[in-house]
Amino acid sequence: MLFRQLYEPDSSTFTYLLSCPDTGVTALIDPVLETVERDLEVLQSMGLKLDYAIETHIHADHITGAKKLKNATGCQIAGPAQDELPCRDIGLTEGAAFQIGGITLNPLFTPGHTDTHHAYLLDHHGMPMLFSGDALLIEACGRTDFQSGDAHVLYRSIHNKFFRLPDETLVYPAHDYEDRRITTIGQEKLRNPRLGKNRSEEEFVAIMNGLDLPYPRKIDFSVPGNELCGMCPDNMPEEMKGLCKDSQQR
Amino acid sequence: MLFRQLYEPDSSTFTYLLSCPDTGVTALIDPVLETVERDLEVLQSMGLKLDYAIETHIHADHITGAKKLKNATGCQIAGPAQDELPCRDIGLTEGAAFQIGGITLNPLFTPGHTDTHHAYLLDHHGMPMLFSGDALLIEACGRTDFQSGDAHVLYRSIHNKFFRLPDETLVYPAHDYEDRRITTIGQEKLRNPRLGKNRSEEEFVAIMNGLDLPYPRKIDFSVPGNELCGMCPDNMPEEMKGLCKDSQQR
Repeated sequence: MLFRQLYEPDSSTFTYLLSCPDTGVTALIDPVLETVERDLEVLQSMGLKLDYAIETHIHADHITGAKKLKNATGCQIAGPAQDELPCRDIGLTEGAAFQIGGITLNPLFTPGHTDTHHAYLLDHHGMPMLFSGDALLIEACGRTDFQSGDAHVLYRSIHNKFFRLPDETLVYPAHDYEDRRITTIGQEKLRNPRLGKNRSEEEFVAIMNGLDLPYPRKIDFSVPGNELCGMCPDNMPEEMKGLCKDSQQR
Repeated sequence: MLFRQLYEPDSSTFTYLLSCPDTGVTALIDPVLETVERDLEVLQSMGLKLDYAIETHIHADHITGAKKLKNATGCQIAGPAQDELPCRDIGLTEGAAFQIGGITLNPLFTPGHTDTHHAYLLDHHGMPMLFSGDALLIEACGRTDFQSGDAHVLYRSIHNKFFRLPDETLVYPAHDYEDRRITTIGQEKLRNPRLGKNRSEEEFVAIMNGLDLPYPRKIDFSVPGNELCGMCPDNMPEEMKGLCKDSQQR
């Protein structure tokens, strides 16, 4: 497998590049509008053509680069089938493996940050790799206080879907805000301050309800933009409209 | 590959199990005397027979489980050829790949913590995995103030051998003292307080010289014990001699 962990600094988002060396089939998980040109340069430098842009969920902190990438490369846009977005080409569902050439991606329905959030698990020749989206972050987790978030539901997603995986499972989150890059299931079971050391659902919910976080600065235009797969919505701030010129419908 | 990250709490040492699924050939990197029975149980539960016990260096903080494992399983003991230990069966050298069945381990001569320290790099189907020993730890590095340590030499080992690897390289250290399990080269380049953000050799040496660490509590018997591949030396503390009954020469 060819693999790259790419970073968008404004929203501290990781975009993951996965490419099957035998078939050349290539995907990006959670591309960001601001870094589409960078992603295209990486693909070109590796001699790859993009086949799929895959979303873990409807992001509230950035607009996806999916539509702009589709316009540039002809890739297909994939994401949770439950989102029912007409702009997506492929709907992903737990239990139905998705092939990136010879790479098998297993969608895991993991609601709680949003009600349709999916993570993606792949078994890289015996090494499990989990793209955990915003459900599980390094020593943290996604917010549960906006959109369709629910702390009770997130707790059960993490415990029932993630914490049953082997301790050695590599966890690649959608974000980190402190320059970290990776964790494992075993590490989070020990160190996650909200979830580790067998914290109860009640403790977790109390922590999440007490976070007192600021209103997300991009949510009002990011959510409608992401429901359009990365076309900029009418309420896009004037200073950001330049980002949209290559992502609008064609 | 079958892979396990095992932990010995008294010296906070990680032992790594690697097994080739096609051939069944199996190795442990840096086994610890105190956890040999645990290691044997793990091997048995996985239906594996141990072929190699591999050392990264002459440890000062614990006695290796290599000799006791050899007595129990008939495995061969491997480690840096430069150590010139008669008790070892196989000497490893940078430039000469070592096969664990179909798994190719590339020794990297990385002195500085000790003058013969080797790390092991393997390319797991496109995902580089570095067993960094005590040369590079998570947001830390091995001590350079005892045995044959040299902070200048360690800085060059890390920069010339490790920091040239891809950012995505998985780093599996020999120790962690804060329940962490993994890092990457990219993460250490950003976050390692002694080495990250392009710290100079002079800065690193000043940090290492200023650590003012306590005398290692097990060094006086661990170093001679490890030079015997895990037989207990004459100066083993009375209360620990029970550990030695299955590791003495046969």
